[in-house]
Amino acid sequence: MSHHPEFDVLMITCPSRASLARIANKWTAMVVTALGDERLRFTELRTVLTGISNKVLTVTLRDLERDGLVARHVYEEKPPRVEYELTELGRTLLGPLEALWRWADEHTAKVLAARERYDAHR
Amino acid sequence: MSHHPEFDVLMITCPSRASLARIANKWTAMVVTALGDERLRFTELRTVLTGISNKVLTVTLRDLERDGLVARHVYEEKPPRVEYELTELGRTLLGPLEALWRWADEHTAKVLAARERYDAHR
Repeated sequence: MSHHPEFDVLMITCPSRASLARIANKWTAMVVTALGDERLRFTELRTVLTGISNKVLTVTLRDLERDGLVARHVYEEKPPRVEYELTELGRTLLGPLEALWRWADEHTAKVLAARERYDAHR
Repeated sequence: MSHHPEFDVLMITCPSRASLARIANKWTAMVVTALGDERLRFTELRTVLTGISNKVLTVTLRDLERDGLVARHVYEEKPPRVEYELTELGRTLLGPLEALWRWADEHTAKVLAARERYDAHR
């Protein structure tokens, strides 16, 4: 990889850009955060992530599994039980995402105020 | 806002979740990173952000302006000149985004290897 991530990632040929595209996605960010240190079933994730559709959750989990960030555990029970958890690689995302959440937590009031001002002038 | 961002942001009623949705977007992340400390024209941004369409760049800049993260400067010249730069609020995003870029830079090789393994088994 490069020693100047802030520049090279903007180039379409940079693999990190594809990787960033995966994590700079609101549902990815929310699924990874929701899993945290836990092992959860699909229905539990759906409950925590209010508003996510079955389809979006299915696709998000499959993409995360494909990228080695989430592990899928299947238990041969009746009915079969499937649980999801972050892999070691997936856990490395928690820190950077926490910085984003903290930003949202601290600055959302200002963002919403700006949005109101903008809309008032259209 | 809350003292437990890592939990509340997952609730659909939490305003921070909407705010996160804005920044957890690959084009937003790339436009903010591309601007950095600079003041750039639309065409300059397009050149830096290879692969972005006019439409996506237009919408991304307008959303960022609406949220108070980007300022649009119009110069009454012939032809008129328009430049974009991060506001003070927008600049607060650079730190959290840098953490994400650093993550992508450090872990993309592992992500790509996982992806190859996954695809080899389908």
